[in-house]
Order: sequence, then C-alpha cells, then structure tokens
Amino acid sequence: MDARHAILFEPVRIGPKTLPNRFYQVPHASGFGSGKPRTQAAFRAVKAEGGWGGVCVEYAPISRDSDEIPAIGADIWDDRDARALGMSADAIHAHGSLAGLELYHGGASSPNGGSRAVRLAPSQLTSEVQWGGLAKEMDASDIARVQRDWARAARRAADVGFDIVYVYGAHGYLMTQFLSAHANRRTDRYGGGVADRGRFWLETLAAVREAVGGDCAIATRIAVHGDSGVPGAEGLPGIDVDDMLTLVRLADDLVDLWDVTVGSWPEDSGTSRYYPEGHERPWAHRVREATAKPVVAVGRYTSPDLMAEVIRSGKVDLIGSARQAIADPFLPRKIAEGRLEEIRECTGSNICILREETFRHVGCVQNATAGEEFRRGWHPESFAPAAGPDRSVLIVGAGPAGMECAVVLGKRGFTAVHLVEAEPEIGGRLRWARRLPTLGAWGRIIDWRVVQLARLPGIEVITGRRLTTADVLEYGADLVIIATGSAWRGDGAQAGYPDPMPGANPALPHVLTPEQVCAGERPPGPRVVVYDTDGYYVAPGVAELLAAEGFQVSVVTTFDVLSPVSDETLEGEMLRAHLHQAGVDVRHATTVTQIGPGSVTGHDRYGEPWSATCDGIVLVTQQVSKDALYRELASDAAALTRSGIGGLYRIGDAVAPRMISEAIFDGHRLAREIDADDPGQPAPYRRERSSLA
Amino acid sequence: MDARHAILFEPVRIGPKTLPNRFYQVPHASGFGSGKPRTQAAFRAVKAEGGWGGVCVEYAPISRDSDEIPAIGADIWDDRDARALGMSADAIHAHGSLAGLELYHGGASSPNGGSRAVRLAPSQLTSEVQWGGLAKEMDASDIARVQRDWARAARRAADVGFDIVYVYGAHGYLMTQFLSAHANRRTDRYGGGVADRGRFWLETLAAVREAVGGDCAIATRIAVHGDSGVPGAEGLPGIDVDDMLTLVRLADDLVDLWDVTVGSWPEDSGTSRYYPEGHERPWAHRVREATAKPVVAVGRYTSPDLMAEVIRSGKVDLIGSARQAIADPFLPRKIAEGRLEEIRECTGSNICILREETFRHVGCVQNATAGEEFRRGWHPESFAPAAGPDRSVLIVGAGPAGMECAVVLGKRGFTAVHLVEAEPEIGGRLRWARRLPTLGAWGRIIDWRVVQLARLPGIEVITGRRLTTADVLEYGADLVIIATGSAWRGDGAQAGYPDPMPGANPALPHVLTPEQVCAGERPPGPRVVVYDTDGYYVAPGVAELLAAEGFQVSVVTTFDVLSPVSDETLEGEMLRAHLHQAGVDVRHATTVTQIGPGSVTGHDRYGEPWSATCDGIVLVTQQVSKDALYRELASDAAALTRSGIGGLYRIGDAVAPRMISEAIFDGHRLAREIDADDPGQPAPYRRERSSLA
Repeated sequence: MDARHAILFEPVRIGPKTLPNRFYQVPHASGFGSGKPRTQAAFRAVKAEGGWGGVCVEYAPISRDSDEIPAIGADIWDDRDARALGMSADAIHAHGSLAGLELYHGGASSPNGGSRAVRLAPSQLTSEVQWGGLAKEMDASDIARVQRDWARAARRAADVGFDIVYVYGAHGYLMTQFLSAHANRRTDRYGGGVADRGRFWLETLAAVREAVGGDCAIATRIAVHGDSGVPGAEGLPGIDVDDMLTLVRLADDLVDLWDVTVGSWPEDSGTSRYYPEGHERPWAHRVREATAKPVVAVGRYTSPDLMAEVIRSGKVDLIGSARQAIADPFLPRKIAEGRLEEIRECTGSNICILREETFRHVGCVQNATAGEEFRRGWHPESFAPAAGPDRSVLIVGAGPAGMECAVVLGKRGFTAVHLVEAEPEIGGRLRWARRLPTLGAWGRIIDWRVVQLARLPGIEVITGRRLTTADVLEYGADLVIIATGSAWRGDGAQAGYPDPMPGANPALPHVLTPEQVCAGERPPGPRVVVYDTDGYYVAPGVAELLAAEGFQVSVVTTFDVLSPVSDETLEGEMLRAHLHQAGVDVRHATTVTQIGPGSVTGHDRYGEPWSATCDGIVLVTQQVSKDALYRELASDAAALTRSGIGGLYRIGDAVAPRMISEAIFDGHRLAREIDADDPGQPAPYRRERSSLA
Repeated sequence: MDARHAILFEPVRIGPKTLPNRFYQVPHASGFGSGKPRTQAAFRAVKAEGGWGGVCVEYAPISRDSDEIPAIGADIWDDRDARALGMSADAIHAHGSLAGLELYHGGASSPNGGSRAVRLAPSQLTSEVQWGGLAKEMDASDIARVQRDWARAARRAADVGFDIVYVYGAHGYLMTQFLSAHANRRTDRYGGGVADRGRFWLETLAAVREAVGGDCAIATRIAVHGDSGVPGAEGLPGIDVDDMLTLVRLADDLVDLWDVTVGSWPEDSGTSRYYPEGHERPWAHRVREATAKPVVAVGRYTSPDLMAEVIRSGKVDLIGSARQAIADPFLPRKIAEGRLEEIRECTGSNICILREETFRHVGCVQNATAGEEFRRGWHPESFAPAAGPDRSVLIVGAGPAGMECAVVLGKRGFTAVHLVEAEPEIGGRLRWARRLPTLGAWGRIIDWRVVQLARLPGIEVITGRRLTTADVLEYGADLVIIATGSAWRGDGAQAGYPDPMPGANPALPHVLTPEQVCAGERPPGPRVVVYDTDGYYVAPGVAELLAAEGFQVSVVTTFDVLSPVSDETLEGEMLRAHLHQAGVDVRHATTVTQIGPGSVTGHDRYGEPWSATCDGIVLVTQQVSKDALYRELASDAAALTRSGIGGLYRIGDAVAPRMISEAIFDGHRLAREIDADDPGQPAPYRRERSSLA
C-alpha cells in the first residue's frame, strides 16, 4: 500500500460500533428490495468482501403508506420483511463489515402504487415528483404513528443484526418535506422556524434511539442546498447551509453518523458530464463546523489520492460511495494492495440510475457483474477457469463488447486470444463518443480495459487490421467471436417510417451521419439541423460540437422533450440548459420526412406540414448492425468446419445496436458461458419467486 | 332472465372443449403475472364465479427473451412458473368455466429489463415502443427456438390444466411484427407477401397443435386495421382487412377460436371519450367471411341487448370483454337473473390501463374490489355483515367517496345510514365533470350508485342540506364520516411555487377556476388562457368547452405534452388531435407566475421570460381538500363525546384530492373495515413474498 493511503484504513468509531476502515458504501437503490433477499445479500456481500468497511442496504420504507411500487424499496413493514433483509446483514458481517439499513418514508413522494394508501406530507401541496393526486396534511395522530413505525422498524432492523439504522432525511422525502420551508407550511409546532420544522425529525431520532438503545449506531442523512438552485427529479432543493448547521447542532446528541448530501438528486448524483469529482465539498464539508461526530459525504470519488486528501482535511471521516462501489466493489482492497491501476473507475454516466429510474434492477456500464452475483453467480474479481483454455480465440472488433469479452476470456485463463481491430485504436464507438463535449470520462471504459488487455498474458491486441471472411477462415482460430459493432444509418429510416427518407444520402455534402461529423466532415453552410429520433447523448453531443464551432444549430426531434433518455440519467435539465446557453434552438414533436437541397420538410405533432431552411442535416435516427462478416461466415458451415472453427459467435452491437452497458454485458456473458452447451444463448439464471407450497 | 338474452347462455364448442356460455373474459393484464399466483387466481376466479364461461389469464411470456420487466407478465419460462399459473386454472375450473392462457412473445416490444436479453424481431428496426436499442433480426435458429419455446410453453400450460392456449398475434408484438409489412422487411421465406409474412405464425400454430394434441383448444389473437390510421402505444397499426381474411383462411385448420382485435391498442381499448360501444364491429366482424370457427371480439360492450344483437348477427360467437369483466365480474349472472339494473357498467375511462401502464396492479374506478380479492379478501358481490349494524351513520358529502361508502355500509347491513349532500344532486365533482365534452359516460359512476342507494333499505339520501359543525354534533349519529371533497384552488399555487400567484384571485372577473367555468361563469373577453399544471382531463375539458362556445383558447402547460396522464389511459393522441381540430392552441413547458389585467407572464423551460395577452385565465393548478368541517369536529373531542359520536372518519378528497378511482377506493375501504380497531387506518393485507427457508 502507498503510505499516503494508509489514513483510509483507520478504524472509525460510530456510536456503539466500529467501522474497520473509512470506506463506506452509502445506501443506494438496487431494485432488489426485501422481495429478492438472496439477490440483495449477494449484491451487498461482494462490497464487504471488496473491503468497504460499512455497507448499507437501500431505502427501507417503514410502512404501507410509503409504498414505492412501481419502484422497489426494501420494505420493512413487518418481521418477515426484516428477516429477509437480515440475510444481507449476515452476508455483510461474514466479511467483517458493518451493515446499515436506510429506514425511510417518502411522504408526498411515495407513489403508493401497490398499497393505494393516501400519501402523507407536512402540507397539502402538489408533489413535484408524483402525479395523480395530493398528499394528506398529516395530523397529530399521523405524526405519532409514523414516528412509532420508524422506531418499530429500527427495532426490527436491530433484531436481525443491522449495526447502523438511518433516519433518512434527504433527497426531498418526508423528513426534507418537514425540514424545508418550501414544502412545510404548517402553522402548528411542526412548522415555522428551522427548529420547529426540525421537530418531527428530532422526535423521530429520539424515538429511534430509545428503540435501539445501544444495539445500533444511528445515522441520519440530510441534504443541503448545492449550486444548481433548481429543484430536480426529487423536487426539493434541500435546505440552506445555515439551516443545516442549526439542525446539526440541534440533533447532534442523537446522531452517531452524519451522512450529508447536496441539493436535489440530479446534483447529488451528478454525472461526469456536468460535475467534477468532489463537487459536493463546498457544501457538504461545512457540516464539520457544527459537529465533532463522524461525517460521511459522497462526491463520485474515484481517486485514492483525493480520497486521502479529503480525509486529511478533517472535514469528513468516511469516504461515501454508491456509484464507485458498484463500478468496483474491490476498490478498497485494490488500494490496500497498491493495485491502483486495477481500479475500475466509475464513468459517472448514471446507467445505474437509469436502470433504477426505469424500474429495472441495478446495472453498471463498467461492471457487468453488478446485480448478477446471485442469479448468475458472477463475481467481479473471480473467474472460473475455462474448460479448454488452450483453444485459440479470434475476436473481430475491439469496441466495448469485444474488449470486455477478451478481458473475461483472459481472466478465465485462455492463452491465445487475438483481439483484432480494423481501426488504429481500440474502443469502437467510444473512440469518437469520448471526444464529444462533456463525454470525456466515458473514455474510462476504454482506459481500464487497455490496462487489463496489456496485463493478461493470453491476449494479443492487433490494431489497424481489417479482416475479410477469407482472413477469418484462414486465421487458424478454434473459436471466432464477431464484435464488429454498428453504424448510424444515413438513409433516414426511423421509427414509424421504416423506408429510406427521400433525399437522405450521406454521400451528399449536406447529409451527414454522426460518425461523419466526428470524423471531421462539416455541412456546406452555417445553418444545420440535427435531427434526433434517438433520444440520448449523440444528437445533443453533435449539436454542442457544431455550435461551439459557430454553426447555427437547430435540433429537430420527434420527442416532446430533447433527449428524454437523459432524464433517466438525471442529466436532462442540465443538458437542455447547456444547449440553450450554447445557442442551440430546439424544435420538439416534429418529424422530418424529406431532405432537399437547402431545406428539410416533414410534419408536426398534429400531422400539419412543417419545413425549415438549412444548409445541412445530421441524421441521428437509427443504427444498424455491421454484421456482414458474421453473416458471410455463418452462411457457410462447411467452410467453418474446414477451417477448424468450432464455434462462431456474435456479441454487442453486431447483434443489435444497444446501449454501451448492454454491449459490454453481452461480451461479458459470452465469455463467462463460453463452455456452455449453446454459448450463443444466455444460460438460465436463478430466480427468487413466491413459495407455492 | 329476459328471453332476448337467452342466446348469450348457449354453450359453444371450441375444438376439444366446450364453453358453458358466450361470455368470454379475454386475456388482459393484471399486474400479478406468475409472481403472485394466489392473487392472480383469486382475481380470475371471481369472474368465473360471476358467470364468465371462459376466463383467460394475461399475456404469458414464453421465454427470457420476452421479459416484460418493468411490466409484469405471466412468465411461463419453466415448470415452476407453470405450476404457479396452474393455480388460476384450478380456481377457474372450480366455478365450471374454461381457463385460457395467452402465450406470448413481445419481440422488439419486450423491454427485457430483467433478463437483459437481446430483443428479437423479424427485421432490425427501431421499436416504436421501446427505447435503448434495436432488436436482433432473427436468424433461422432464433425462429426455430422461439417456436420450440412456444410449443413447450403450450405443453406446460396443458399439463397444469389450461383448456385454451393462445398463439398471441395482435397488438404489435412478435407475431404482428412478422405479419405486418411495415415491420417485416425480410427477404427470406418469412418475409414478402402475406402468406410468407404469415409463415412464422402458421408454423408456430402447427407446433403448438402438435404439442397439446387434443388437450387444449388453440386460440389466436390477431389485429386488423381499424379507423384510427395512426400507430399508437403499441406501435404497429395491425394488418389490413384483406390481408387478415387471407391469413384467417390460411390458418383456419389450425385454430379453434379466433380472437380478433382492431388497430393499435389505443383504438382496441378505446375509451368512452372517443369510441362508442361496439366500435370495432366494422372491422373485427368481417372475420366471419373467412371462417366458420368460433370468433370472439371485444367492443367495450356493457348493454345486454347489444350483446345479444351482436350474437344474433352471426358475426361473432362470443362476447369478449376485459374492462367490463373488471368493472362487474358478475355481469353474466346478473343478466341470467334479470337483474339488469344491478350491472356496474364500465365507464370506459381506462383507469385499469392507466394502472397497468404505470406498472401498478389492476384497479377499477367502478369496482374497488378489483385486484383486492386475495390480499384484502374483498368480493365484489359479497359483504360481511357489520358487527353493529344498528349504529346510525352520518355521511356528509355524496361525491364518489361518500356514495361508495354508503353503498358498502348498506350492503353490510347497516340500517340507518344518512348520506347528506349540500348540493341539490349527488355526485360531487362528477356532477360537473360528466358535463364536460366527451366525459358523459363517466356519469355511470353516479348512475349505478343512485340505483344502489335507492334499493338499499338502510340508506337515506338527503340532498340540498349543508351541515354545519353544530348540525353534525346535534345530528344524533353514532358514527360520522366526512366526505366533503375538494375544490380547485383559485390562488394559483402550483408545483414549485407553493405561494399564491400574484394576481390570482377568482373573485376577479378574469380569473376563473374550473368549477366557476362549469357553473357558467365566463371570461370577460374572447381570448382565454387555460393554465394546466394538473395534466389530466380537466384542462382539456374546459378548453374544449370554451372553444366550442367560440372563445380563442390557448392551453399553457408546464408539461412537455398536453395532458400526459391521458397517455396512460391511451387517450393522449386522440385528445390532442381533438383539441387541435377545435382550434385550441397549446404552449408547452411554460410556467405562469403572474396574472395581470389583460395578460399573463411567466417563463419558458429555460427560465426565459414569457408573456401573453388574454382576457382571462382558467387556473387548473392544484386542488385543496374541503376539510374545515372535519377539522372543527376533530378539534373538540369533548363535544364529540357529548354528542355520542363514537367514531369520526374522513374519506376521499376531503383527506387528499386524488383520482376518482382512489376516492371511491377510500370510501369502500372504510366501509369494509368500519369494525376494525382503528378504521381510519387501512388494515394490513396479505402479501405474496419470496420464501425465506
């Protein structure tokens, strides 16, 4: 270990418990809740195994009036729920770490889609998160009941072995609704000045302390205003720093661990596109002015040096992490063992959050094993030796899928894997995507794999060599894996219009694909339409790139909002503000159906004709697999046999253009299952289901 | 029974099975899938009990590459799934009905959010439903595998007792993707002319027939173009009538039951706002030209006379129903027993679909027991006798919650329930909502309850009497239930802006609430802004009303699209086209923050200043509970005791303004649980959970 990092491995006392080091996986959603207890336990256990001294399970609704369906919370409504969650506590303890549970009530933000209970809130205001109705203004009996539910849930958590229980007060949920003058309009003793707005929270902390006695440390999570100033996906902007310091002083005797977040969720979980590492320090670190108790704060830390610097500053005591602990559960161990180059850095692209926001279980672009620990038995650092490791493998294409597949085959002990790339550099579409404005950190997907590929003795990377079908047949490989990726179509085919668009021909100077733009081609005049039916990062990236060069850019999109997928990564508001500031005009809900010289025509949301003059158009409409090589090979089984090719597979975008995370997952899966009877098809996985007996 | 309806009770032979009558609950989603097998079984069983001769379980994905997460499908991936679903077959059989299972593959429409499998499709086109990637163009092995999976799933279904298995080919899913020239671009023998596009489906039908032999009837569901002409929520518009007839002739030998739907899902499940009862007849009924096999078709039928007429026409053999069977599972029995006025007619408002589209379990505005059969033990026609039925009950307010509560108390045997309404008519907010353009059928919510209230001997309805606190205390009731509803705020408070809006004062002639408009007040000039931060039916309804009177109406909304909630009820596209045709202008993503005489001002999505001149504004911003009466009563416990009031409760919008379905649910629940220790709080319910052992 580097001596500079030793401070990170000091134990930290929190109330009656001691954390073995300063690495703390803060609570974050997984999509497993208490309904998939073994999956949850396996997901958390690997973080404890990787060296995180504190590992928390996600938000745990304390009662049916905080029911998160359609999202998945770790409900702890009764003893059976608690026993399910206790499996996680046991699994975390098995590796010597402390286990935390984030007891939670969503208040007006709870959808209650399962329970159909009325929402609760300090005041009857429209939720800035939920549709379909307002909340009940809590009366005295509601307040007493929620506090009782919280204390009971804490006792249940203690009984099944949790070391740390939360009074979750951040991110716009019930506690913040009380703490915030914006949402709390009460005229009784639970509203008014900051101390009165804090009363519900203080009383709850006291009730929880009484319930758990010395059996648990009590953590509380609060949100302080950051710099975004705008309410985000969770609605409330948090509380200002002065109020926070007042509240910390008021509650300090009741709290063993302060977990401080910043602003609204899109800021707190800020992506690498818009927030640097450690961006929360100017706000979160001020809590030290009001407490000597241990403090944990996040900040998308990936650098061990910065982590150590933050601890040495004395402002916080624990390095909080959600996303980095997903991307690399073994970060602490790697630091301890001085294997810094092995750290799989979080890209800050919020694919984990996109999956949760769309009601899927956790996933990660960097770590394909995230969420697969139980059901597929995958481990981020452990790889079953292959059955026939001496088989030679040719992987054609070193994009995300090909790189990942090669790495995993290498880790499984394959001795002769050739990763052959036609371009001069590996990385596939990320080579150009990482050069779009704000997307630089996505390049970490390449960077980590470059290191791995260099270190694995069984892998040879060959660039600048474009293989033909004949080349592949003559290559001498036992197994061939095609990972040739995808390209943007230049013919304007789009959802609803599967035929080529009249005038869409990228051989014309005024019609461009995103790849052409990234390769340096430019429209013949200043007025450019970027036409987006894709909805994610490519169109805004190209628009921003061209705008920065002085083009007059209009994005025309079929969607009602620019880049709706970016809302799922919490980037939407910032992305749109960014483009607006760059002078990019946006026209929504409009379909382009024809391109002429000097104009584009189509229709608006009502089918009314629409047209615009422009000097060129960039078509961000639809991708297509580059699968010609695969098809040619697959069409001649006899040739494969003659060439001694025992297996021909296809991964990533060459199968179907998808998100980068899914291409990587695909490459990873094939490598994990290369010894299966039919490696081309995913093997069945274990499912946690209702008992039938 | 009325002799005209006898034809509905004839048995119908389908392949090797015989349906006991012509009432057929077609497959429809429930949100229970195979993951909540007891809940699913109880939900379906009550329909069999109510007399539906055929009862189908919802779409059942046959393999992991049609994984519906985040939605819930009735996965039948393995034998254990099948055993779970078999509980439904058993429960349906217990009432003498046949059980069907809709075997399904979503193709490009499957999110695969759980399995992370690649999507499959005949051609690699952008899904018109799913984001995040394209599908794999199925190769020969994919086609063979899906057919094998389908046959295996059919065999599993047969083994656990299902009488009818589906080859589901409608609504834009995999089969339709093959059948549709729009989505099928293949150049092999599975693409081209209609017979070639039908090959995959025909082969699958044959494989299923071989797998189940004579153990099951084989149904297939196909979609024919309707009149909407636009792809809807499920993307594909179906196939045209000529192609359908060709396909029916090609497949007729393999099919025992034709289940014909029309157009895209928003048309097939067309709401009462935009489609009349039986609207599918001009298309669906043409299938008779090509087959003598039994045919089932839907059409939101609620009238027994029309049902009988449809059967007598000879065009179809079975009355298919999803929504009416949810609204009244006992419709067949009520017809058989001549109790026509007891039929709880579907309103066609698609609350069932809204809940499914937002990943909740099924619910119904008319039938609060839908989906609650297992977990709360509720039955739509059976009510436990109350413990103290002679207690006198005063319900203040005869809106949706109050009406429903009174009806259920009456059915539980209460002998002295007074339902007291201040207005001259009962119905609450529905009194004016049903008079908005297109919303007439929503009045069925009132109509059914009017009949029930009149028939239940223990209930007295008193209208035109506004009770004060003193009146209630002196009323002499043992139990008091406050159901005084809610009102639209006139002060312009809205999400993000909890304080009153400057200039928002409904005492001014140019500032109106929706209630004022419905009561006949009009702006002082022709130019009206309807400001919508609510997102559902009120603002479009008011706008359409005013536009029809000649006002120049602009809807200004904070949302990116007008009435986003209407997309969840499948009404969005039609609603927006409707208003556009009526000349209503819409400005999106705009926030009004101030009202002046002759203008409104605010900001756009980027925070840039915005203003418009107008003669008046209607504020559809936020509702507020009318709870003053409740608060006054609750604040004086001694007075309640003195008055002999043993219980004071509050239901519906007086607790929190919500959707009508939730207000009714609330009133129903209180009446069901009035004997509980704490009737004000919902009792715990049973949950199906993962086994822990």
